[in-house]
Amino acid sequence: MAKSSKPATEEIELRGHIIDSWVLPRVFDAVMDLGGEFEVLEIQVGKRKHEESHARLRVSAPTSAQLGEIVVQLQELGAEVVGQKDVDTAPAPRDGALPSDFYSTSNLPTEVRLSGRWVPVEGTEMDVAIVVDRASGRAVTRPMVDVRKGESIAVGYGGIRVLPIPRARGSEVFSFMNSAVSSEKPKKLVIHEIARELREIHARGGKILFVAGPAIVHSGAGSHLAGMIREGHVDVLFGGNAIAAHDVESALFGTSLGVNLENGLPAEGGHRNHMRAINAVRTVGSLGKAVETGLLKKGIVYEAVRKGIPMVLAGSIRDDGPLPDVITDVLDAQREMRAAIAGVEMALMVCTMLHSIATGNLLPAAVKTVAVDINPAVVTKLADRGSWQTVGLVTDAELFLRELTLALEES
Amino acid sequence: MAKSSKPATEEIELRGHIIDSWVLPRVFDAVMDLGGEFEVLEIQVGKRKHEESHARLRVSAPTSAQLGEIVVQLQELGAEVVGQKDVDTAPAPRDGALPSDFYSTSNLPTEVRLSGRWVPVEGTEMDVAIVVDRASGRAVTRPMVDVRKGESIAVGYGGIRVLPIPRARGSEVFSFMNSAVSSEKPKKLVIHEIARELREIHARGGKILFVAGPAIVHSGAGSHLAGMIREGHVDVLFGGNAIAAHDVESALFGTSLGVNLENGLPAEGGHRNHMRAINAVRTVGSLGKAVETGLLKKGIVYEAVRKGIPMVLAGSIRDDGPLPDVITDVLDAQREMRAAIAGVEMALMVCTMLHSIATGNLLPAAVKTVAVDINPAVVTKLADRGSWQTVGLVTDAELFLRELTLALEES
Amino acid sequence: MAKSSKPATEEIELRGHIIDSWVLPRVFDAVMDLGGEFEVLEIQVGKRKHEESHARLRVSAPTSAQLGEIVVQLQELGAEVVGQKDVDTAPAPRDGALPSDFYSTSNLPTEVRLSGRWVPVEGTEMDVAIVVDRASGRAVTRPMVDVRKGESIAVGYGGIRVLPIPRARGSEVFSFMNSAVSSEKPKKLVIHEIARELREIHARGGKILFVAGPAIVHSGAGSHLAGMIREGHVDVLFGGNAIAAHDVESALFGTSLGVNLENGLPAEGGHRNHMRAINAVRTVGSLGKAVETGLLKKGIVYEAVRKGIPMVLAGSIRDDGPLPDVITDVLDAQREMRAAIAGVEMALMVCTMLHSIATGNLLPAAVKTVAVDINPAVVTKLADRGSWQTVGLVTDAELFLRELTLALEES
Amino acid sequence: MAKSSKPATEEIELRGHIIDSWVLPRVFDAVMDLGGEFEVLEIQVGKRKHEESHARLRVSAPTSAQLGEIVVQLQELGAEVVGQKDVDTAPAPRDGALPSDFYSTSNLPTEVRLSGRWVPVEGTEMDVAIVVDRASGRAVTRPMVDVRKGESIAVGYGGIRVLPIPRARGSEVFSFMNSAVSSEKPKKLVIHEIARELREIHARGGKILFVAGPAIVHSGAGSHLAGMIREGHVDVLFGGNAIAAHDVESALFGTSLGVNLENGLPAEGGHRNHMRAINAVRTVGSLGKAVETGLLKKGIVYEAVRKGIPMVLAGSIRDDGPLPDVITDVLDAQREMRAAIAGVEMALMVCTMLHSIATGNLLPAAVKTVAVDINPAVVTKLADRGSWQTVGLVTDAELFLRELTLALEES
Repeated sequence: MAKSSKPATEEIELRGHIIDSWVLPRVFDAVMDLGGEFEVLEIQVGKRKHEESHARLRVSAPTSAQLGEIVVQLQELGAEVVGQKDVDTAPAPRDGALPSDFYSTSNLPTEVRLSGRWVPVEGTEMDVAIVVDRASGRAVTRPMVDVRKGESIAVGYGGIRVLPIPRARGSEVFSFMNSAVSSEKPKKLVIHEIARELREIHARGGKILFVAGPAIVHSGAGSHLAGMIREGHVDVLFGGNAIAAHDVESALFGTSLGVNLENGLPAEGGHRNHMRAINAVRTVGSLGKAVETGLLKKGIVYEAVRKGIPMVLAGSIRDDGPLPDVITDVLDAQREMRAAIAGVEMALMVCTMLHSIATGNLLPAAVKTVAVDINPAVVTKLADRGSWQTVGLVTDAELFLRELTLALEES
Repeated sequence: MAKSSKPATEEIELRGHIIDSWVLPRVFDAVMDLGGEFEVLEIQVGKRKHEESHARLRVSAPTSAQLGEIVVQLQELGAEVVGQKDVDTAPAPRDGALPSDFYSTSNLPTEVRLSGRWVPVEGTEMDVAIVVDRASGRAVTRPMVDVRKGESIAVGYGGIRVLPIPRARGSEVFSFMNSAVSSEKPKKLVIHEIARELREIHARGGKILFVAGPAIVHSGAGSHLAGMIREGHVDVLFGGNAIAAHDVESALFGTSLGVNLENGLPAEGGHRNHMRAINAVRTVGSLGKAVETGLLKKGIVYEAVRKGIPMVLAGSIRDDGPLPDVITDVLDAQREMRAAIAGVEMALMVCTMLHSIATGNLLPAAVKTVAVDINPAVVTKLADRGSWQTVGLVTDAELFLRELTLALEES
Repeated sequence: MAKSSKPATEEIELRGHIIDSWVLPRVFDAVMDLGGEFEVLEIQVGKRKHEESHARLRVSAPTSAQLGEIVVQLQELGAEVVGQKDVDTAPAPRDGALPSDFYSTSNLPTEVRLSGRWVPVEGTEMDVAIVVDRASGRAVTRPMVDVRKGESIAVGYGGIRVLPIPRARGSEVFSFMNSAVSSEKPKKLVIHEIARELREIHARGGKILFVAGPAIVHSGAGSHLAGMIREGHVDVLFGGNAIAAHDVESALFGTSLGVNLENGLPAEGGHRNHMRAINAVRTVGSLGKAVETGLLKKGIVYEAVRKGIPMVLAGSIRDDGPLPDVITDVLDAQREMRAAIAGVEMALMVCTMLHSIATGNLLPAAVKTVAVDINPAVVTKLADRGSWQTVGLVTDAELFLRELTLALEES
Repeated sequence: MAKSSKPATEEIELRGHIIDSWVLPRVFDAVMDLGGEFEVLEIQVGKRKHEESHARLRVSAPTSAQLGEIVVQLQELGAEVVGQKDVDTAPAPRDGALPSDFYSTSNLPTEVRLSGRWVPVEGTEMDVAIVVDRASGRAVTRPMVDVRKGESIAVGYGGIRVLPIPRARGSEVFSFMNSAVSSEKPKKLVIHEIARELREIHARGGKILFVAGPAIVHSGAGSHLAGMIREGHVDVLFGGNAIAAHDVESALFGTSLGVNLENGLPAEGGHRNHMRAINAVRTVGSLGKAVETGLLKKGIVYEAVRKGIPMVLAGSIRDDGPLPDVITDVLDAQREMRAAIAGVEMALMVCTMLHSIATGNLLPAAVKTVAVDINPAVVTKLADRGSWQTVGLVTDAELFLRELTLALEES
């Protein structure tokens, strides 16, 4: 992938509803995402909603290869290169293979310039080649596998233009979609970025809020969260009866909902251990007392009590028990949560839809939020409430917290 | 909800990266979505990516209530009303209740104008009220339930401004999200809109492609699709071995994967019926022969054969049998599919990720596509491939096709 | 599918850990599921866990075809037919097709009886045929498509036996699975069965509890639930602030979370309508007062108030407002719910994980429960809590409630 | 949790449809799962399906605490302890707390023995206490939080019996459910167990099949799989065009679908890199040639070619290109796959529903299979096809493969 090293420049034009069809900002984004620069040479914006706009931009990039990539993307947004020449072609090197800089089509109507005239490409299909027959003045799409050796294939981006389909208004049922929650991106990278952000916030005196659901304990991740608290990475802890009860169960009996966390098997005496755990704490009087009396010797709650960080356990109607520290009136719980979030700059919300949504309702938009759940629907729901600066991760609590812990240690 | 009947107008200003932070197109969208009009009074676009832009718009709406709603939305995008007066207030009518036109906050930093001076509202929280104390010159957010009778509550939108958080560039891990696949919207409305569009396409001579997965038969929806074909609503049918085999199984034995479609119970002779069905067709030679010889007397395949519509059954490595009509070479199948989509203007893709993605790869962007699956991840994946004009529906095949059939009959 | 009309009988034997490997009950189930009868001729149960058991059963069915089907299933569970003869074969009618009563394999090691000797079938693969070569005394599996005309194919079930793989104990990580939540079964049938059960419960004086989540209103299904209450199909209503607030919003403004329920578009004045709705009710004092004063004239809450059925609205920390009728202390809410469930024989839990789990915690196991959600994970979670007599439906609230309403009207 | 060290014994009785309601095998399972022993003292099995059965067992456990746990579980299955005495009680130690060995109820009707008479416990609710009033001869359920100091609480298991609800036959719509795919179990344990099994299979000369989907590359896990192949952990590789194309794209350009795998950002020149990668391989002629000529220098395909392990790339209709090594006829692909699985004892199927189901169709039941996907529906579908010895993991490819690699290195 050799590149020429001199910067390259191209002038492009946009016409139509380029602002209310979001074309212009997408053009700006594309140029910047791909490492280019732009200068607005001319812009004229329609005064009313049916009037069209017009813009002319100079786009540049460090290399002509990079510029080519940018221009191809802009073409799909409807940009037209100013001062086009005829399309370039090269012969297919063998049956079923293309010249290395072949033009790979979009699924939009496309035209090529032949002898100074724009000719529609026959057949509209994504990711195929354009075979050009200069003799007959025709151009057709052709799948790579069906190309024959020596056929003239369109290469580069010059002399090619694309006719975008106007974006449907929001009031139509058909619209263009792009979801924001992906389970296919490399999560390791995202988690390391979160760790970096977390440390920066701490460095400038901001606070980290952790909103914790019971699956953290079930999935065997309790020790990671306990470790994060012990190491000072968490300043405020929100949760409910379940996470605290399962954490205490885990500390007292080594089980979570009766399943042994060491070997994954149902434990002797297991399936009512969470009730026994709650009863044990109710008997001594509070979680603080449980630590003080030596009943509770490890775990999330233990570390939070030891560290003295605010811990708000909000009640819900599905609670068993509950633990004596749970705030059973939800308005009181909201008030406590509201008081505790002063100074919070990042919220890690892991495996709890209820507490996460409740927390999200209280947080200023400027707080960065991380929503983690194995269920994509939960992540979408959390991330989709109009908040800004959210990152949603569809993954396990255990694997997320382990990676986060590693990333925090590395710094 | 009485409205004043005279049109209303307001002038607003925008500053900053209003194009590359997508603010300007979102402002245009919001005005139009909410039934207003706008006129661009002045616009100045930054030439390079770090230069800021500036715009001034006149926004109008049929009623002042409607205008108020628009302006509140624009404020959350960072718009500021030109020529602001002080904030209006009204007393809370009783403890825990607000004046009916109370200003409901966003989660963005907010300011109110008091005696000509912009004062930051203390506490940033969504969906709460602003209590104004003119004496002390302070304003604070307050949850509805904590408001006391007689307190001064900010009302309307005048004298209030919101400070938006700059949109993170795409290259940061934290970004704002809005997913496009919802399972909570009223689907009946969407389905009726699809029916309307389908009839319009037929009226102008366009074609409808149906891409069918086997769950259509399992879910008991086979007869709906058969009916749609019989009534002429489908012009091209794509599928695989499974949908056809299950349809034949259903026609011959009344079962799908051995489950009786009348009563939902495992049928006598059931669990290998699909193999028997395939074998019966292989024995007569083809699906066409099966109809001709009277072996096959009803169902999706039967109606398609009778109607003479193109039916492309593409092979896959998970096929049992397969049926003799299945094209087992995938490149041949792609070629047949490519040939069959000429003239298609709408594609209904129901319960098959494989065939839907394959079809999506071949379709021009101008084709309207409908992706239906009970699994949100499938709908997201189909809808999320950069195609335009897609509608994704997370729902059952049976209930979707029944509603669509009803909607088509109504016309 | 003609059947001989005389009843048919076969004797089968089972050996090994037939009770603790669950083989015996699965044999009993299979016989009954497929419409057969059985008689235990002899049984000997191992006294300790390593001792084997042995059983001999006489199985009968109305027709020999049905018996054949039963025996094939029992073979896959390890049953062996007593007094076996040699395997029957028939020639393949053409290339790639099989005799109509061909034996379709399982994925278990299989043997056929040739000249009185059990011969292992070479190749173990599901859903393929067995080609028998009597001359060489060999038998091999062969995919249907690879069979050549005239080859000897095993038919029927006689002279064939299957060697099951011992079921792994629960303590191993590999286990056999069968999930219980299917999204591919014909839901219409299930819903009609629920309606039948509901009417029977009412006929004998039992009560129906409806646990309602807000998606009922978002999805446009509010009127169905309101209708069910009006028609007397619901005796107790559980929910939270959200369902009631959205129902009131819908009644007052025609929107749900600001989306117009008639046309699916964002409504004028919409996105804060739920706060306005809550405020309006807080201003008159209660939901009862809202009906009394004529503020509230339709919807779920309206019908419930009019009908005088108990309605428990339990608070949660994510509540906006809340409505004055919401019980904000969760222990109080649990007590009210506990009091209201006396006499309940069926619980319909639709689109609310929180309230459904909370309700499930309080219900006796004898109560039949129906869990409905578009998210399979929620249905699994609800159905998977060890309760008996549950049916889980992965589907939309709107489509479920519409079908249920239709089914209730039909009676 | 002190235990007495002497073994303990109890005699229990079962009556009713204890085999066809699966009670007896569940009793056997429960005893063994919880570390006990049993001896069948007497068993009488009903001859026909309406006749009841009867069994008497002696159950023992190392400690009386463990025995108690077992007996409580058996009670919930309907077992009755032979020779019962009256229920034991102890006073509640304080308001809202219980004696430490309190009996925690199930949601089944329960009776306690008072003065030699079985008395129904009033109120049926799970996980609550039983308050006994010997004076009035009554017993009632009571939530922990509502218990008052000094009340008599039932403890232990003696003098308590539970009346199970008959299991509904399979032919009813209401049934009891237990799903097998959990996303809350500690996955680390499961993955280490898989690693152990993999090494055992290799030690005895068995083969490991890896069925690989493209998300392995997208998620950044390609290097883990490449490493596993290099280290000799994989003997056969199945996949499709996509995994190989993305792997080559990653090796040539450092991107996957145009996203940079190092920093997660869209890459310069990215969005058509997969077409370029395919074209580059088509130009040299094959994947083998790509390694030979030095075009391909790392990655999954590179390691597989170097190691010389069989790699079957099966075509599908959604393929771009495809790569020259892809078998485009699906029947040919099935034949190649069938040939390659001889000797396979474990199949790891990661992130590909199509290839996994296709593989599952071909595998003997004795092969242990591991199904990994982030989408629970896929895992359920794979695991739910009647195969035995499956483990389903709902998790990321990247995190799964990293953990597996670590686990394999540890040995």
